[in-house]
Amino acid sequence: MMIVMKDGATSEEVQGVVDRLHEVGAEAHLSKGEFKTVIGAIGDREVISQVPLLALPGVEKVIPIMKPFKLVSREFHPDDTVVDVGGARLDSGRFVVIAGPCAVEGEEQMLSSARAAREMGAHILRGGAFKPRTSPYSFQGLGEEGLRLLAKAGEMTGLPVVTEVVDVRHVAMVSSYVDMLQIGARNMQNFLLLREVGLQQKPVMLKRGLSSTIEEMLMAAEYIVRGGNSNVVLCERGIRTFETATRNTLDLSCVPLVKRLSHLPIIVDPSHATGQREIIADLARGALAVGADGVMVEMHPDPRSALCDGSQSLGFDEFAGMMEQLRSLAPALGRVV
Amino acid sequence: MMIVMKDGATSEEVQGVVDRLHEVGAEAHLSKGEFKTVIGAIGDREVISQVPLLALPGVEKVIPIMKPFKLVSREFHPDDTVVDVGGARLDSGRFVVIAGPCAVEGEEQMLSSARAAREMGAHILRGGAFKPRTSPYSFQGLGEEGLRLLAKAGEMTGLPVVTEVVDVRHVAMVSSYVDMLQIGARNMQNFLLLREVGLQQKPVMLKRGLSSTIEEMLMAAEYIVRGGNSNVVLCERGIRTFETATRNTLDLSCVPLVKRLSHLPIIVDPSHATGQREIIADLARGALAVGADGVMVEMHPDPRSALCDGSQSLGFDEFAGMMEQLRSLAPALGRVV
Amino acid sequence: MMIVMKDGATSEEVQGVVDRLHEVGAEAHLSKGEFKTVIGAIGDREVISQVPLLALPGVEKVIPIMKPFKLVSREFHPDDTVVDVGGARLDSGRFVVIAGPCAVEGEEQMLSSARAAREMGAHILRGGAFKPRTSPYSFQGLGEEGLRLLAKAGEMTGLPVVTEVVDVRHVAMVSSYVDMLQIGARNMQNFLLLREVGLQQKPVMLKRGLSSTIEEMLMAAEYIVRGGNSNVVLCERGIRTFETATRNTLDLSCVPLVKRLSHLPIIVDPSHATGQREIIADLARGALAVGADGVMVEMHPDPRSALCDGSQSLGFDEFAGMMEQLRSLAPALGRVV
Amino acid sequence: MMIVMKDGATSEEVQGVVDRLHEVGAEAHLSKGEFKTVIGAIGDREVISQVPLLALPGVEKVIPIMKPFKLVSREFHPDDTVVDVGGARLDSGRFVVIAGPCAVEGEEQMLSSARAAREMGAHILRGGAFKPRTSPYSFQGLGEEGLRLLAKAGEMTGLPVVTEVVDVRHVAMVSSYVDMLQIGARNMQNFLLLREVGLQQKPVMLKRGLSSTIEEMLMAAEYIVRGGNSNVVLCERGIRTFETATRNTLDLSCVPLVKRLSHLPIIVDPSHATGQREIIADLARGALAVGADGVMVEMHPDPRSALCDGSQSLGFDEFAGMMEQLRSLAPALGRVV
Repeated sequence: MMIVMKDGATSEEVQGVVDRLHEVGAEAHLSKGEFKTVIGAIGDREVISQVPLLALPGVEKVIPIMKPFKLVSREFHPDDTVVDVGGARLDSGRFVVIAGPCAVEGEEQMLSSARAAREMGAHILRGGAFKPRTSPYSFQGLGEEGLRLLAKAGEMTGLPVVTEVVDVRHVAMVSSYVDMLQIGARNMQNFLLLREVGLQQKPVMLKRGLSSTIEEMLMAAEYIVRGGNSNVVLCERGIRTFETATRNTLDLSCVPLVKRLSHLPIIVDPSHATGQREIIADLARGALAVGADGVMVEMHPDPRSALCDGSQSLGFDEFAGMMEQLRSLAPALGRVV
Repeated sequence: MMIVMKDGATSEEVQGVVDRLHEVGAEAHLSKGEFKTVIGAIGDREVISQVPLLALPGVEKVIPIMKPFKLVSREFHPDDTVVDVGGARLDSGRFVVIAGPCAVEGEEQMLSSARAAREMGAHILRGGAFKPRTSPYSFQGLGEEGLRLLAKAGEMTGLPVVTEVVDVRHVAMVSSYVDMLQIGARNMQNFLLLREVGLQQKPVMLKRGLSSTIEEMLMAAEYIVRGGNSNVVLCERGIRTFETATRNTLDLSCVPLVKRLSHLPIIVDPSHATGQREIIADLARGALAVGADGVMVEMHPDPRSALCDGSQSLGFDEFAGMMEQLRSLAPALGRVV
Repeated sequence: MMIVMKDGATSEEVQGVVDRLHEVGAEAHLSKGEFKTVIGAIGDREVISQVPLLALPGVEKVIPIMKPFKLVSREFHPDDTVVDVGGARLDSGRFVVIAGPCAVEGEEQMLSSARAAREMGAHILRGGAFKPRTSPYSFQGLGEEGLRLLAKAGEMTGLPVVTEVVDVRHVAMVSSYVDMLQIGARNMQNFLLLREVGLQQKPVMLKRGLSSTIEEMLMAAEYIVRGGNSNVVLCERGIRTFETATRNTLDLSCVPLVKRLSHLPIIVDPSHATGQREIIADLARGALAVGADGVMVEMHPDPRSALCDGSQSLGFDEFAGMMEQLRSLAPALGRVV
Repeated sequence: MMIVMKDGATSEEVQGVVDRLHEVGAEAHLSKGEFKTVIGAIGDREVISQVPLLALPGVEKVIPIMKPFKLVSREFHPDDTVVDVGGARLDSGRFVVIAGPCAVEGEEQMLSSARAAREMGAHILRGGAFKPRTSPYSFQGLGEEGLRLLAKAGEMTGLPVVTEVVDVRHVAMVSSYVDMLQIGARNMQNFLLLREVGLQQKPVMLKRGLSSTIEEMLMAAEYIVRGGNSNVVLCERGIRTFETATRNTLDLSCVPLVKRLSHLPIIVDPSHATGQREIIADLARGALAVGADGVMVEMHPDPRSALCDGSQSLGFDEFAGMMEQLRSLAPALGRVV
């Protein structure tokens, strides 16, 4: 923590900061320039960060030096964390494809999607049962019945399954049906839910919030890992910017950055990022090339009749085309799809 | 709903859209230009919006014409909604000031804050008991003990109280202590929580999400009102932008816009918006001048020792100064503080 | 300048940074924590900022401590700069209103606008002759003929005039017609143009760029002042964000912040910020209340036939209404309109 | 153009819009829903877009249906435009690498960079002679002397060269030294400069503005092509968002989108986008994978002593590593580096 004093801060003000640091057991290290005094606070980061340094007289700004996350950091755990999702492993050699409909709509739709996913080489099956929707007038999902259909589709095809959990009261119930729990973008900072999924052992896929920084995403992961569950998979799914040509702006730079900062695997969701079927395969290739551990895409037997996000769902043929492209690209990157 | 077809869309594709609209009981109205065909879909908005029109062949884009919210709209309910918070009324003549510490830290801190708020003319007392914090290592609030202290401070001073609720399981419990429930910015699209607070009758203050559009904020309010509770107070608290000189960017244009779109009262939170004590009073005056129904500000007996957001908390003197300024400004705007 | 070393930086790497600082005559001040070493660089800011510290081995980040601007800073020049625009003074007691059409379209339109501006109490007349337009197919302005009409309207009414200059080759020519030169938002970082208007003495109104930080705006002003012209008026006109309900997001927090950081006057342009006639007066009041030195608004004898930005132009009646509101509000703020 | 009328717009207001459209020779096509009337304006897009429809009474919003650009659109010119830069062709089979220092600093630095670029397989050499810098106190480039050194380095190695032009008065002069002119991000909407480079025939590389939409970038290209020069190469270089972990947010989705909307080639600049040497190669691979026509990267014989952007410049070894990776990836995508 570096504490920058205002121009013309008095020596009493500087001493006030130093005293406050000593009170909590930290050291203070002064650096006086011609115009500015900077105080380095050395000691336990968590303790120091509780002191409202900015509110002390004469302080202009406080600059954190250490990263605010710990358990999820590469420094703390240098080796890649390998997450096993019901047999599908997110490790550095493999590029994992998660596919399935946005929402479970019914048995036929779910089972045919699962069969197509299996046939074309996907590794994990997705399907939403509880759908957070901007409008109260939109389809909100089939609930537990949806989970049953998803689980059945998984069993039938041998694919592990993932679904979103939105309610703290449902974690155990949802967990009993699936191999991985998804925390949606709108819940990335729903700290109660993060704590709850951290108290159980099923892997958790944590999607980046619409306006969350990379650091905030890692802090959210820290909540889960701190709870006791280190099986966390991060997911970049686009951030909100001024650009309206795509639903969100996919931040692929995030992937190599996260790889340097953290040991957790990170996948990419080009469906929600772009909102446009036509360019999803292009960005799935991009995700593979920048070093992501996998992608999650939406597919549907008949996107034209989908109850949710039809415009960003791949038809089976388009999905097959994407898989083909990924398979031919992967070896040049030392990966296997 | 206007459906814009791609350049060179075939007449089969146009017919496909028309047929799909007829299927759900809507009318289709064709408008053919030299290059583009546009289809106007006329009928029940909610029914039409369920059709995945963007996924139909030949469709380029779908443009909503009607606003997606209804119950909260000015068209539906032309008169201002007056919300009564334990006796403090948010109506057009009054400018309501909500004040208190970011977090309840203890009895002494809470009671002295309440006394100061009362003395200097605030109308409602705030204090956080459950704090959503970016870091799992930060102070998370006193929980129910905090609620007890807040309620006690309210009784002692006769001020109604407001606090944030973060857990769907706590709505009834929190509600039993306070006069208004606050939904924080990070929970603006926690639809479960919105539904839950919509099922009870205590007023709800809904803070705008960090990256939420005005339309999304009104949709979130629609969730609450649709549940049966129309005592909703909106709160502009800054949005996330590229500017780092302030914590967020306060969007004061939002206030007159919301006043035109909706009948709900809207207040402004300059503390979270700016993160800087020095300019809070300036923006509180701005909020009054643009027509907001009130402000909410953080104050603390000793900001230097605050456990939460000390740098944006006003000391009692600063708070008194702000109140003074608001009081002298209000009459020129036909308002009473 | 604080140089934060990577975790595990070697002592050779630390010494490398220290040596590099010594080479340019700066002092290096070490602060070693358990995990991190931070090096404070003390000396001439400009000299140190030329060293590519981030490119040195072992360096994680470089944190500037001093503000990068100097001549425009409040520290350098504690008193408010008063800018005199052809007799209209931007000083702390007055709230200056600049009004007129987006573009000069013809004699009748310009003269009637000038008369209305004068009659209703505006202090400065605006009118665009060279219009930077997103589309090459939009009206680009009348050029020098427009300047003649603007100057004539100014003479006729006794109002000083302001217009935008876009071409470095035109500075002297445009300057010969007007009392203040405007640098548009898209040219805020057209450094050539900044230098050119800095070499003459007519006041310059510098509009904030669409995606410029406050610091960058002040740096742009520094270019002008450094050239020798300290008659600079800053103008907040909205920044680009994800919100689409307004044309831009007006950042009124910018006003009190700039007042603290700089001695230059700052005005607000609610017309471009919102793009919506209906809320312009609301935000003009807001600008006055937060402490701006004035506003600039677009008005037109017949907004329905305006060749440019008709939807955000006030009709004469609306303009008169806004002036009325500002006049009744100003005294409560110790100001005169 | 679809004109959406306000709820409760009168039939006079509707007729007013219809009449205004007829005046300019356009057809009006009415579509009346239960609440809303929408008027389709059919006719010459440019003519209609000059009518200030939004300013007409009763109009709520105006929705453009046709794209605002024409000459650069894929519809107008279905085949890819192939741009020849002094012998280096940007066509669909090749992936072009542009490399060189941010700024020309001296003969030795420029020549050694050129040799390294040549040796490691770059196709075009870059080097800045006129540098637009945020601070007036930063190195501003060597000017024409820099151009001479760049041209010399190009001749010596046989590589075509590109440099940024910032001054409308310099276009012919700069053009006489180089094979391609670059318009920098800050000048993307410097319409004068766009027109000037459109009046000559040297290829132009147009960088996307920091806060420019894809549509605005294509409109800027339209200015150049309309001037008579269709040798335009677009360049995605990151947009400004709330994320601070990277210098900008690279928008790779832009690449496949632009490929669908336009016939112009598009390259990617991962150096400015990320500002971080360590992840440049990762994003260059990403650019290749999503279908870009090339990349532009900064390299320097000694990034630690670079006068400009050292932290984002690759050393020769790092550059060689990136080229190696691109060469091994390209064949799997049907491309040649």
